Amino acid sequence: MKELTDQILYDVIKPRPNNSFKGTYGKVTLVGGNRNFGGAIIMASTAAVCSGAGLVTTATDPSNSGALHSQLPEAMFADFNDADQVASLVEPATTVVVGPGLGDDETSLAILKNVFAHTNEKQNVVIDGSAITLMAREDLAQPQGNIIYTPHQMEWQRLSGIKITDQSEERNKAVQAKLGATVVLKKHHTEIYTNDEVYQLTIGTPAQAVGGMGDTLAGMVGGFTAEFSKSPLKATLAAVYSHSAVAEQIAKNQYIVLPHQISRSLPVFMKKMEAGKTEHQIGFLN
Amino acid sequence: MKELTDQILYDVIKPRPNNSFKGTYGKVTLVGGNRNFGGAIIMASTAAVCSGAGLVTTATDPSNSGALHSQLPEAMFADFNDADQVASLVEPATTVVVGPGLGDDETSLAILKNVFAHTNEKQNVVIDGSAITLMAREDLAQPQGNIIYTPHQMEWQRLSGIKITDQSEERNKAVQAKLGATVVLKKHHTEIYTNDEVYQLTIGTPAQAVGGMGDTLAGMVGGFTAEFSKSPLKATLAAVYSHSAVAEQIAKNQYIVLPHQISRSLPVFMKKMEAGKTEHQIGFLN
Amino acid sequence: MKELTDQILYDVIKPRPNNSFKGTYGKVTLVGGNRNFGGAIIMASTAAVCSGAGLVTTATDPSNSGALHSQLPEAMFADFNDADQVASLVEPATTVVVGPGLGDDETSLAILKNVFAHTNEKQNVVIDGSAITLMAREDLAQPQGNIIYTPHQMEWQRLSGIKITDQSEERNKAVQAKLGATVVLKKHHTEIYTNDEVYQLTIGTPAQAVGGMGDTLAGMVGGFTAEFSKSPLKATLAAVYSHSAVAEQIAKNQYIVLPHQISRSLPVFMKKMEAGKTEHQIGFLN
Amino acid sequence: MKELTDQILYDVIKPRPNNSFKGTYGKVTLVGGNRNFGGAIIMASTAAVCSGAGLVTTATDPSNSGALHSQLPEAMFADFNDADQVASLVEPATTVVVGPGLGDDETSLAILKNVFAHTNEKQNVVIDGSAITLMAREDLAQPQGNIIYTPHQMEWQRLSGIKITDQSEERNKAVQAKLGATVVLKKHHTEIYTNDEVYQLTIGTPAQAVGGMGDTLAGMVGGFTAEFSKSPLKATLAAVYSHSAVAEQIAKNQYIVLPHQISRSLPVFMKKMEAGKTEHQIGFLN
Repeated sequence: MKELTDQILYDVIKPRPNNSFKGTYGKVTLVGGNRNFGGAIIMASTAAVCSGAGLVTTATDPSNSGALHSQLPEAMFADFNDADQVASLVEPATTVVVGPGLGDDETSLAILKNVFAHTNEKQNVVIDGSAITLMAREDLAQPQGNIIYTPHQMEWQRLSGIKITDQSEERNKAVQAKLGATVVLKKHHTEIYTNDEVYQLTIGTPAQAVGGMGDTLAGMVGGFTAEFSKSPLKATLAAVYSHSAVAEQIAKNQYIVLPHQISRSLPVFMKKMEAGKTEHQIGFLN
Repeated sequence: MKELTDQILYDVIKPRPNNSFKGTYGKVTLVGGNRNFGGAIIMASTAAVCSGAGLVTTATDPSNSGALHSQLPEAMFADFNDADQVASLVEPATTVVVGPGLGDDETSLAILKNVFAHTNEKQNVVIDGSAITLMAREDLAQPQGNIIYTPHQMEWQRLSGIKITDQSEERNKAVQAKLGATVVLKKHHTEIYTNDEVYQLTIGTPAQAVGGMGDTLAGMVGGFTAEFSKSPLKATLAAVYSHSAVAEQIAKNQYIVLPHQISRSLPVFMKKMEAGKTEHQIGFLN
Repeated sequence: MKELTDQILYDVIKPRPNNSFKGTYGKVTLVGGNRNFGGAIIMASTAAVCSGAGLVTTATDPSNSGALHSQLPEAMFADFNDADQVASLVEPATTVVVGPGLGDDETSLAILKNVFAHTNEKQNVVIDGSAITLMAREDLAQPQGNIIYTPHQMEWQRLSGIKITDQSEERNKAVQAKLGATVVLKKHHTEIYTNDEVYQLTIGTPAQAVGGMGDTLAGMVGGFTAEFSKSPLKATLAAVYSHSAVAEQIAKNQYIVLPHQISRSLPVFMKKMEAGKTEHQIGFLN
Repeated sequence: MKELTDQILYDVIKPRPNNSFKGTYGKVTLVGGNRNFGGAIIMASTAAVCSGAGLVTTATDPSNSGALHSQLPEAMFADFNDADQVASLVEPATTVVVGPGLGDDETSLAILKNVFAHTNEKQNVVIDGSAITLMAREDLAQPQGNIIYTPHQMEWQRLSGIKITDQSEERNKAVQAKLGATVVLKKHHTEIYTNDEVYQLTIGTPAQAVGGMGDTLAGMVGGFTAEFSKSPLKATLAAVYSHSAVAEQIAKNQYIVLPHQISRSLPVFMKKMEAGKTEHQIGFLN
């Protein structure tokens, strides 16, 4: 296993070219947030916007549109029950994020199938939370696209068939190879399984053990892969590293870190990183 | 009566173990907030999230879901009229908080009975506000669980039958003993009646005399007992002490303290406390 | 005309007694905010809460309840179309504020009449905005209570029959005397007509020339008269003075002052004032 | 092409006269924000309010009213489907802003036609986003008023018939002359075509390449032209310059700039500018 270091940040987060516009930074379509779990998709969307994606659209239950716009007017809204509209938003997206707060009932399943039916090979597709559970339970085929799974250990058990206690690097790698997807296995010292390499994250803090932390990570992977689309793999690694690096900084002064604090800190954090390793100051929030 | 001191903070608020996850810090299910009093359950939920509970779900009137997610995407939502869903959220909770903004009409009563029917001996059940009034008025049996009442003096009069002017330590203790519950009697110099001991809080400020302050305390007791579940009693005492300690700090610069300010200050406050008595700096907000 | 000075702040804003609770600081019921002007009653309610009133309830159009709780969970909500509920909230109030964003259609009128039918001699009744226009247009009798009008010059023209260009101290005083009410005539150098005296405010800034500034003043008068209920007149004067004093401080660094900034600054401002004239520091926000 | 410099700020942003009131600073009516794009009109409205316009009303889809008031109680709400109400809000406005998030379906078109039918020669009419697209697609006649278009290059292609690659100063100027309108052509180094002159903006940052940035600009042009109504052209230029000047300042510390941050920074920025060129401090946010 290869240790993921802050070098990934300097490789990925570069100064933006002057002659760029929002189209340069990709489109993210997020799908999730049923009537009960609206906060999850709002947190994921906040992460995508604050990461710097050019355009962000959130397809969710209509009961969440007011709260979405209250916090995040930058995101556009779609009713996730409107299959045609969701399809029209999935198709042109640079990255699709599906799962945060989606739920696992019949409606959730229909929405997930609709999303899966409209992705294509050129897209990044981040599959998170209940979308993973549904795939496993319903034995859904993996959709087209550059697939990135962001399971916690129980979700990985469901998807891979490997019990948590049996989840070794070798076994995980074997399933990853069969899937041909990137797997961000969230745990103490998160592991990232890719076609070429297995990475381990050695930073992070127990102050991150708070509901919504994973939704935020999924949204960041969405935002980074859309914005830094030349290398979705490096973008994913940079998102995973940034998520915990920002949390560590906040946790210096806080017992817990609220997920939205990570998202809201990203613009300042990423500015420090674009200057490159030798120039940035440790302790960006101070 | 034993004076409650800041020692309780150092006893309870310890550095989080590295290998912990959100499941380590418990589940809180809060039930309350009718169409008129939605703010109460939002404030209680904010307190529970900011205290550091692992997962927080708020069962409330549907008209409050937008405002809940606008402020607190970390909390999940449930319709408190859906008896089956509420039951399914009460049963696995580490702590149930019922009462803030619940109201006292027929709907409120039905919801309260449903909650009481689904708690179990292993849970903490915080009974606050109109839930106490309803229990007294309807002569409801005390539910299963480690019961923690958080009445103000009038609510205690209703529950205990002791008039405010007659509420002496001895009489209060006698009723507490019959109930076998913890009673946090909110007043100038709040008193906490437990099976073994009566504690008195000697800190606090009249800047706390603001609507919503009690809802915030109930939410903090909910959050602390879920997070520090090894000793729910100590967790309760730490929540009560923290509530006023934070308020005192804020009140150094403010004529009144708004309840959400206490909640939002908790992550910083608790970080200072985990370092232990000799190391933390007085004046944590400066 | 007597110049209103900062002495009124030291006379009114005193340290809170230790053994006080939220009931000590009164109840404010605000009525207004139709479907179009919901922001007005939200701004007024924010002012009342931040002034330090003990309990604040906002009766408004149901479409505003989500936005109210999103910003101000401390306030309770009522549907202003529910005449019985509004009556039950008006009757026990220390101060009723009616008018901000109420509108002037048939619904507005019915609501206003209902409010006026339920006030009593012991209450403060702040009549603002469209409530003044409706009173004049419909020739409504002045309700029971200690009446405080907060008109701008055009609204005062409608109520008093004195054209703006003819609004002299003498003429205004004569109408005030007939009304037996306090009149806060909002203008450059606001004038306050009382039974005994005419006061003039000589502070303030054109940065206050922003929509919602008057709604905030009405809410502050509501909050101050409930909280400092021993002398509603002095409380009114202190509210008027504080409103512009805070605005002046903010305007040192801002081209315009947003109304909610005044409200949110009140807890810090009032803390400085409670120390008394010789002790407080000029420049409270620095 | 003439370089637009910071001199425009000192020409336009002057200290407010003491004896001014909100009516002095004009009325802005914004129309846009369908069910999907509510954030756009909220961002535009926030910009108008923070620019310092006296009164701001937002006509939008009813599903957006809660989020509007949650963030911006200073703005009034109208249902953009109510043609009579929209007409009654367009007619007295100093400036009408139409387009942000309006969409391009049949409903959008009907609303746009209704707005265009009620403007008059004395008003400023800012036409943005989908309103431009609809005008081009439906071949709508330009409405009465001082027209200000704020297209990006593709929208300008649709309106002018000049392909993006062919958009030269000369060709653009020719179409502008035919329109008799001001054209703010948003691009890297935005160009402003007016009857007399072509201006170029040489400041700005790729950190502005974020969804919602254009909505914010449209709202600022709306706010500035209403507030500084003596010279709508100069006001427009000052709005364009301020938008990027503020963004540059924020971008010193952030990888991206969120649109609402520009709006919320305006009161402080404009205060610095009113002091005049020699007196203001560079680095206003520090």
